[in-house]
Amino acid sequence: MARPTPLSGFPEWLPDGRVVEQHVLDTLRRTFELHGFAGIETRAVEPLDQLLRKGETSKEVYVLRRLQEEASEGDDARSGRPDKQLGLHFDLTVPFARYVLENAGHLAFPFKRYQIQKVWRGERPQDGRFREFAQADIDVVGAGELPYHFEVELPLVMAEALGALRDIGVPEVRVLVNNRRVAEGFYRGLGLDAVDEVLRQIDKLDKIGPAKVGELLVSEAGATPDQADACLALAAIHGSDVTVVDRVRALAAERGVTSELMETGLAELAAIVEAASVRAPGVVVADLKIARGLDYYTGSVYETVLVGHEQLGSICSGGRYDTLASDGATTYPGVGLSIGVSRLVSRLLSAGLVRATRSVPSAVVVAVTTEDARPSSDAVATALRARGIPVEVAPSAAKFGKQIRHADRRGIPFVWFPGGTGDDGTPTPDQVKDIRSGEQVDADPATWEPPAEDWWPRAVPAEG
Amino acid sequence: MARPTPLSGFPEWLPDGRVVEQHVLDTLRRTFELHGFAGIETRAVEPLDQLLRKGETSKEVYVLRRLQEEASEGDDARSGRPDKQLGLHFDLTVPFARYVLENAGHLAFPFKRYQIQKVWRGERPQDGRFREFAQADIDVVGAGELPYHFEVELPLVMAEALGALRDIGVPEVRVLVNNRRVAEGFYRGLGLDAVDEVLRQIDKLDKIGPAKVGELLVSEAGATPDQADACLALAAIHGSDVTVVDRVRALAAERGVTSELMETGLAELAAIVEAASVRAPGVVVADLKIARGLDYYTGSVYETVLVGHEQLGSICSGGRYDTLASDGATTYPGVGLSIGVSRLVSRLLSAGLVRATRSVPSAVVVAVTTEDARPSSDAVATALRARGIPVEVAPSAAKFGKQIRHADRRGIPFVWFPGGTGDDGTPTPDQVKDIRSGEQVDADPATWEPPAEDWWPRAVPAEG
Repeated sequence: MARPTPLSGFPEWLPDGRVVEQHVLDTLRRTFELHGFAGIETRAVEPLDQLLRKGETSKEVYVLRRLQEEASEGDDARSGRPDKQLGLHFDLTVPFARYVLENAGHLAFPFKRYQIQKVWRGERPQDGRFREFAQADIDVVGAGELPYHFEVELPLVMAEALGALRDIGVPEVRVLVNNRRVAEGFYRGLGLDAVDEVLRQIDKLDKIGPAKVGELLVSEAGATPDQADACLALAAIHGSDVTVVDRVRALAAERGVTSELMETGLAELAAIVEAASVRAPGVVVADLKIARGLDYYTGSVYETVLVGHEQLGSICSGGRYDTLASDGATTYPGVGLSIGVSRLVSRLLSAGLVRATRSVPSAVVVAVTTEDARPSSDAVATALRARGIPVEVAPSAAKFGKQIRHADRRGIPFVWFPGGTGDDGTPTPDQVKDIRSGEQVDADPATWEPPAEDWWPRAVPAEG
Repeated sequence: MARPTPLSGFPEWLPDGRVVEQHVLDTLRRTFELHGFAGIETRAVEPLDQLLRKGETSKEVYVLRRLQEEASEGDDARSGRPDKQLGLHFDLTVPFARYVLENAGHLAFPFKRYQIQKVWRGERPQDGRFREFAQADIDVVGAGELPYHFEVELPLVMAEALGALRDIGVPEVRVLVNNRRVAEGFYRGLGLDAVDEVLRQIDKLDKIGPAKVGELLVSEAGATPDQADACLALAAIHGSDVTVVDRVRALAAERGVTSELMETGLAELAAIVEAASVRAPGVVVADLKIARGLDYYTGSVYETVLVGHEQLGSICSGGRYDTLASDGATTYPGVGLSIGVSRLVSRLLSAGLVRATRSVPSAVVVAVTTEDARPSSDAVATALRARGIPVEVAPSAAKFGKQIRHADRRGIPFVWFPGGTGDDGTPTPDQVKDIRSGEQVDADPATWEPPAEDWWPRAVPAEG
């Protein structure tokens, strides 16, 4: 087999990159669990018809077929029915909605879950866009109803989770919040009823700028130049305190817009901004241009950017669905956000923001004097592991210089030398060497321990 | 959307089942890391030609295609080349071998890695056989050479990892060990050179018994009845101390077999059994009938059964490959084992061996007196979380009885009642209630903590 080359869009990390990713995943999981979210996993596949329900994402789906499907002797082949067509999930929302319906009788609502899994999209790979990537989602779903306060809580959980990564060098985040009701109420109050079409154009603001969006609002969404101007004025409003709500009201008054829907949305937006100013000052910004494309959100919508890396796009997005799922009898509203973990980790590594202190778990290599004496090195390792210290034993009884290089090449800080018998026949003690300082001291495997910062590999700011 | 039904072969757990699975995964990871194995993940897909290299597994592969592949505007379509055909990996060995070759220049050898991921096989689902399942693999791979002692170390790491699950109710395990060199040397010494064919028949012993295997050795492997009898006699030898080696030598002498290869294999087998008798007494059994089908093992082979659940088959298997990978210039020998995590967890849950103490992370529900007072409940939750206690706030300011039922339905042991103002205007303290005992005491969110066993959900023996 010739040396294989990477597949574009399918990122993989070397062991030290995986240390960083694992730290990110562990930190997210811990934050989610501290907030009471239950972890679940769903299968990687869903029936194709379910994946295509929304239409918009159809081009991204990977469809599966068993290599020997034609020749199958399975039940399905015997009955003349082909296997139901399956595709890989492209997000964790569609599978979660299905899981909720399938297991509704066994779940307690409101049901808070987190889910950290790979997803797949067959789109063209480019910077920060992958064909396979890990997402970390939190959602709350209610049976029949879901109180508004969850729309305040969830972005704050995500802000806390991402904030817990600041100490490894992850940049500050900004959670940008908008409310679909504000936009829809405002547009309808202006006399613009093609709400989806207006949102579709507003969503392009970051890419093509207000002038072009204004033209498209006229040509595509049926707006008059005045209406287009008002939509752009609304989208330009942003800020991290409740005066932002006053500014929307002032704009509405100026344009003669009155709307109950807008007022409902503004009250909701104000509640998020107020709660955030207490619980995560400076992190949440109301931003009236956030549209979230054509996702089926009905209330709050969220995007999150890394400060200084805004061109990477949103690394954590979501919103409120009035109908996350429905089985006809019961409707399940939900609110959730999703972190693009691979996109985040890829940036942390490629921009040199975060590094691992070493590429292997071991804090110690136990040297081996001769192959015959390997059991005594194994015994040292066992004693250290029994106290939770990660250890490996040298692969061969090479010269000690080579065994030290084995540790050095992996970033392992300590090498342990089992004692033996001195020239005069008396036993010599075990010793442990810090290969960074060269310091070597007597040590007992029953009591010695590494400094806390050397115990496990850690993710740290790359400048550190 | 009508209520969906499960897909056969694609297991999913309810939140309490996931608590059990997560505990298993965390325990395996911790043991692997204590032994210095670095965690990696590989992409889910490999080029189809690589997946089919061994031929034997071709019928199990899921092949991927992008739904819009024909209409693609991507580079590949423009250049007239179809996308390289991709399939989902069916194990973690093929991807690991590819990862080693692809990254050889960046890895330090011998390279010890663990890998815990889903794999997919399009085979017919049946008890304990899934189409999607999690595997947990450890392997050591060397560049050019790999000392034998790793063949002793790796099954002991797995025995330790599975042994660490005993306290949640996982049955005792037996690691069954054999050595291909013993079998091959013995067969050739008998005059039987169709070694693969003999192994293929011996592999059927558990399914069809010795009488039928004896017949097949004659009809399919070209053995005389005497040779078949000798093969069956070898396969019948097993034991957990080194006398097993003496019994093989006695059988060989009796049948006039001499073989250097067999002697090499016996010395290796003795080394495992001896080391295991010190490090994991009673766990490792030499079993001369273990053949591991047609996998390309060249030395030690391993299978692992749950005592009392032998009919489930092996839950952890592996062996030594002289050629895990090769790029022409360098050959990479390896030794590794793989735990079928889904098969194990599925059995733990379905046989009622293990249960979770609750289905959500929260140890505490903070009650909400009125919606206006929600911020004070949020503040209690924040104070508790700051000290690492998992907490959720009640979803609504319902009657306290309903808020207690919210906790009870999820198995959450404590409900916290924020203080207020008494009838006489004096402040009343916060209180926390253990809803199992009904005991309710004054509590301060800055100092109160739950008992250690209630802090996080735990996996415990189901009888407990």
